[in-house]
Amino acid sequence: MRTLHLIPNTLNSRTPLEHLPVSALNALKSCNRIIVESDRFARRLIKDSFPNLNPEKKESFLLNEHTTPEDLVDLLQWFKNDEDIAVISDAGAPAVADPGAAAVRIAHNAGWRVQPHIGPSSILLALMASGMNGQQFSFKGYLPRDRKIRERIWKEMKEGLSRRKETQVFMEPPYRNDRAFKECLNNLPADQQLCVAVDITLETEWIRSFAISDWKHQIVPDLDKRPCLFLIGH
Amino acid sequence: MRTLHLIPNTLNSRTPLEHLPVSALNALKSCNRIIVESDRFARRLIKDSFPNLNPEKKESFLLNEHTTPEDLVDLLQWFKNDEDIAVISDAGAPAVADPGAAAVRIAHNAGWRVQPHIGPSSILLALMASGMNGQQFSFKGYLPRDRKIRERIWKEMKEGLSRRKETQVFMEPPYRNDRAFKECLNNLPADQQLCVAVDITLETEWIRSFAISDWKHQIVPDLDKRPCLFLIGH
Repeated sequence: MRTLHLIPNTLNSRTPLEHLPVSALNALKSCNRIIVESDRFARRLIKDSFPNLNPEKKESFLLNEHTTPEDLVDLLQWFKNDEDIAVISDAGAPAVADPGAAAVRIAHNAGWRVQPHIGPSSILLALMASGMNGQQFSFKGYLPRDRKIRERIWKEMKEGLSRRKETQVFMEPPYRNDRAFKECLNNLPADQQLCVAVDITLETEWIRSFAISDWKHQIVPDLDKRPCLFLIGH
Repeated sequence: MRTLHLIPNTLNSRTPLEHLPVSALNALKSCNRIIVESDRFARRLIKDSFPNLNPEKKESFLLNEHTTPEDLVDLLQWFKNDEDIAVISDAGAPAVADPGAAAVRIAHNAGWRVQPHIGPSSILLALMASGMNGQQFSFKGYLPRDRKIRERIWKEMKEGLSRRKETQVFMEPPYRNDRAFKECLNNLPADQQLCVAVDITLETEWIRSFAISDWKHQIVPDLDKRPCLFLIGH
C-alpha cells in the first residue's frame, strides 16, 4: 500500500541518530519525494542522518504558511503515482503546531496509508516533564498578539484549569517569551503551578515547575529567542 | 546534577531498538532505580532492549492508581541519595495518560533535573496522522462511563470544536471502543471529521479519517480490546 510517512525532525540538535528511532530513519532514507516545511532544515536532517546520501536525489515540495490552494493542486499529482512520500517539518512532529496536515488530508482522501513516526515533540516532552495533569490537557498553540483574542484565550485557559483541571499548554514567538513569562506571574494566582520548558532535548535544556509565589524567588535564565513552552496546571 | 529520566515504553511492540532513540535507551540502561507502572512491562522493555542485562540489577518502585500517599513517603527516600532514577510506563510516555506525574513533582521539589526522553505517544502519533488541526487541540483522556459526566464532556468537546476549532482527542477502556465509535456516528453531524487510530506502531496499525457521512459506508475492523484513539476535528 502506498504510504505517506510523517517524520519528525530533531528540535535543532545536529544528532538525529541519537534522537530519532530506527523506524523513522529508515523511512527518511527510503522516500525520494519529500514534503518539507523548509528545504534547509529537511536537507540538514538528511545530511546529518546519512552523510553519504546525496540529498539532491530527493525531490521536495514546500508546504508551509505560504503554500496556496493552487500549489496544492501540484501536490495532488504526487499522490497519483506509486512512490511513497515523506513529510518532514523544521523541528518536531509534522502537523502538530507545524504544517503538514494538508498533505495528510490528501493522503486519506486518496486512500493511502498514513504512517506517523516516533520522534521529538516539544509539547509532549514538556507535558511529561511538567509533573502536571497529563490525563486531560489543552494545547492552545502560539498565543496571538491581538489583545482581545489573547484575553479571550487567557479566560478559556483559566476556565479549563478551574472547571476541568486540564493542564494548559501554550507557546509564543520566541522573541516574546520574556514578556509571556511576566504575564504568567502577573496574571495567575500565587498558588497556581507554572512550568517553563526551554531548549528541550538540547544541551541547554532547562525545565522547572513551581507555584507562582515560588517563581518570584527563582533565578530565571534569559528566555529571549529560545524555543520555550509554558504549562499551567495542577 | 541528579536526574529523573522519563522513559517512554513501546506501544506493545517487542522491538524497542526500532522504536526508541539511542538517548532513551542509554538512560534506560544506566538507571538502577526504576519507578514503574507495572514490573512486568518495564522489565520486558529492559529485557527486549538489553538481553544480556540482568533485570534483577534494577530496583523498582510501583507507581500507579493503587499507590497511596503513604507509599510515596518511601519514594521520597530515593530522592535523598545521588543515584539517577528512571520512570517507565507500561506503554507510551510516562505522566501523559499514564502514571508518573507524582514522581516528577517530587523531583522538581527536590531540585533534581527532570529529563523527558523521546519515544512513542499514541496521542501525538494519532494527532499527526489525523490530518486535523494540530495547532490547537484538547485531550480529554479516558471518557468516563457515568452518563452525566460523559454528557458534559461531549458538550465541552462540541463547544471546543465549534468555538475554537480545537481538535478533540479521547480514549476509552478498550472493551468499550465499538460502542464509542457508534456513539460518534450517532452524536456528530454528517460533515464532522472523525479519525479512528488503532494499534499505533504495531503491524496491525489502522488509521482512517473521514466525515461522519463517509464513515457510514466504510468497512471498519473490530475495535474491541485494541488500543484505539478517537479524534474529532476539522
